Amino acid sequence: MEHCDLIILPRWLVTVDAADRVLENAAVAITDGRIIDVLSRDDATEKYQASATIERLDHALIPGLINGHTHAAMTLFRGMADDLPLETWLYDGIWPAEKRWVSSEMVRDGTELAIAEMLSGGTTCFSDQYFFPEIAAATASTMNMRAVIATPVVDFETNWAKDANEHMQKAADLVHDAYVDHPLVSSAFAPHSPYALSDESLVNIRVMADQLDLRVQMHLHETRTEVENSLKQYGKRPIARLQELGLVNSSLLAVHAVHLDETEIEVLADVGAAIAHCPKSNMKLASGFAPVARYRDAGIPVAIGTDGAASNNVLDMFSEMRSAALVAKGLSEDAEALPARTALRMATAEAAASLGLESQLGSIEPGKWADIACVDLNRRHSQPVYDPVSQLVYTARADQVSDVWVAGKQVVASGSLTDVDENDIYARCNEWQQRIAQG
Amino acid sequence: MEHCDLIILPRWLVTVDAADRVLENAAVAITDGRIIDVLSRDDATEKYQASATIERLDHALIPGLINGHTHAAMTLFRGMADDLPLETWLYDGIWPAEKRWVSSEMVRDGTELAIAEMLSGGTTCFSDQYFFPEIAAATASTMNMRAVIATPVVDFETNWAKDANEHMQKAADLVHDAYVDHPLVSSAFAPHSPYALSDESLVNIRVMADQLDLRVQMHLHETRTEVENSLKQYGKRPIARLQELGLVNSSLLAVHAVHLDETEIEVLADVGAAIAHCPKSNMKLASGFAPVARYRDAGIPVAIGTDGAASNNVLDMFSEMRSAALVAKGLSEDAEALPARTALRMATAEAAASLGLESQLGSIEPGKWADIACVDLNRRHSQPVYDPVSQLVYTARADQVSDVWVAGKQVVASGSLTDVDENDIYARCNEWQQRIAQG
Repeated sequence: MEHCDLIILPRWLVTVDAADRVLENAAVAITDGRIIDVLSRDDATEKYQASATIERLDHALIPGLINGHTHAAMTLFRGMADDLPLETWLYDGIWPAEKRWVSSEMVRDGTELAIAEMLSGGTTCFSDQYFFPEIAAATASTMNMRAVIATPVVDFETNWAKDANEHMQKAADLVHDAYVDHPLVSSAFAPHSPYALSDESLVNIRVMADQLDLRVQMHLHETRTEVENSLKQYGKRPIARLQELGLVNSSLLAVHAVHLDETEIEVLADVGAAIAHCPKSNMKLASGFAPVARYRDAGIPVAIGTDGAASNNVLDMFSEMRSAALVAKGLSEDAEALPARTALRMATAEAAASLGLESQLGSIEPGKWADIACVDLNRRHSQPVYDPVSQLVYTARADQVSDVWVAGKQVVASGSLTDVDENDIYARCNEWQQRIAQG
Repeated sequence: MEHCDLIILPRWLVTVDAADRVLENAAVAITDGRIIDVLSRDDATEKYQASATIERLDHALIPGLINGHTHAAMTLFRGMADDLPLETWLYDGIWPAEKRWVSSEMVRDGTELAIAEMLSGGTTCFSDQYFFPEIAAATASTMNMRAVIATPVVDFETNWAKDANEHMQKAADLVHDAYVDHPLVSSAFAPHSPYALSDESLVNIRVMADQLDLRVQMHLHETRTEVENSLKQYGKRPIARLQELGLVNSSLLAVHAVHLDETEIEVLADVGAAIAHCPKSNMKLASGFAPVARYRDAGIPVAIGTDGAASNNVLDMFSEMRSAALVAKGLSEDAEALPARTALRMATAEAAASLGLESQLGSIEPGKWADIACVDLNRRHSQPVYDPVSQLVYTARADQVSDVWVAGKQVVASGSLTDVDENDIYARCNEWQQRIAQG
């Protein structure tokens, strides 16, 4: 008998491996935070002596969901400026609020609320873009949440830094300081968008990203207005401009990418760039419907993300998978477009690939981190179960998540966060709400 | 002091009255199943001696949600034939399964599961179209759920009736037998669709609907294929054909109505017809996006419905309101289209109007039935609360529903059904699943 730390025995084991296997009567063995084996229950009983065994008879075990794009701390602005178009929302709602309220304390409190929401909903990793990224990184590390902390860069002064150079310098500091080979936190560069940065700044970002070996993620072609304004100002569309500046390559994650023409789709596919798709935010801010089934057909990896809570208003990857699958069918008028298994893949294995973490995350396979969520399908609205993946994508809610592990540590048990004082988070969150609402 | 049966004291009282008032520190008084007063807490304390008082300090009280279109018993086919286009889904998946499995027992068990799901999710009334409507009516009545039982009519033989005449005769029997002036159940006619009925049958339906004073609801302009086939077969679009047959009038509820041209929108508005909008089903079956903001601008009342669980896959009106609001914004590229308050109205007051029940249901106002749901907003993903209606539509999940009353009777308390043995329902539901999956 070999020793292992933990054996999990679910009703259905949804691997999201290359063959998309869904196993019954199967087991996962975990040691030192990694998945070491996927095998039958019988073989597991013969082969392993486990320190702990968890059996979940009505549950599907899935790779921890990966939120491909969010602004975690914006939970504190959740529902503050709804039913407004993107430009009004940004210029009159969000940016003034950020100028007034963003601080290291705000980012800590908002990120804690976000992580509590995400972990309890089966999300084990998030890609974050927000000010004070060092606070988000520390908060994720403390709460045992995996995170890609993408440090923001804009040309103008923010509460975090005074200009593009200071944003970039602080980003470099973050990379050097504490997060090289961190087990949970990695970093990336997040120039906000082509419209928030000059050519000079964008070139500097490319140079620094190369030096630091950082991937770059950027809001890109989110609205028609963005594309039109770029044509007016630069005589070219944003992607063409970035291409000339050397930023369109395999380390690029194009966030939103709602409005791409066929040439742009081919360019992104050819260079090996990825896309982060935020269907609910794109609808809520009226940006439109991104044709992601087309993008995937062209060979572009597509991650699913929630965007921030101010434009969604939840950080719920089940809801987001469902929206991605449904919107793709409605848009293409093809019900076979983006089936349930593809939606789940875009929230796990393909999201990992989009973040450059495919060797570490995104499927239940030996060698990967034990980032895993367990979902109870024995609920009124998930019954009966003909196909567990269908029920996961088309029926499951975040409250069905019973257990979550990040790097083998159990962070959710019986639906509750194991190590978080949520009442304390809520109390601080309500204090922020009262201050912000009073202006 | 006046006597009343019940006083409810929520944090927010969302009336959905004509002025769309959201009241804080307010109370609702209920007696004999009806709302008798909406007033301030202080006034309520002075005016009423209540047999019971329920206080909910973190909650929004809303009119019970009205599911404007479903096929309740199809919960037993939930997830059985996903990711298929409507015609394949219907002809190869659903209709053969119905031929094989539909019976009075199946309708009872499936409807019980559906009602358990709907009531616990804050839905207090559903408009149902399915075979064995007498079973659905009896099940709703037994479970204390309000229902509009729309009896189906098709030309071909079903497990319920052998031809159009027998379908119609059985519908008339249902109306006469038990459901005249029933406190919970009312009825309507549901010719399935123009493509399932000959001109002769449609004329007979109109005559009988007039005689019985029944409203008519019909799947209409759901897909492009439906419209094209009608053009081929009849030389006219379905609505034009129905207009000639006398069925386009103020008693018509056009279900789906995804593909209407401007003339058809004007016709429906002019005659005072209503539309039932099922955004998730329309996406899942790839029918498209119904431009409901345009319909409402034209003056057509629009109800929101889930459609059956085989094409959604849940009967969750929170999810459906959210989808309606988001899709409308994405489609029109106007973030002000279909704001949260409108979505809530379409699931309450406007749904009631679409079903001809606006004097009885759909808002928290004196004189109406006490069909009410209480929603806990003190959850991670609904915090903080700047605007309770925003959080209800953009964040709330069915599991936040704490209490539900139908005609003043409490059917959900602390999130649990008061009077239903759910384990028994699940057991029967799983037996069906095993039989159906084995074919």
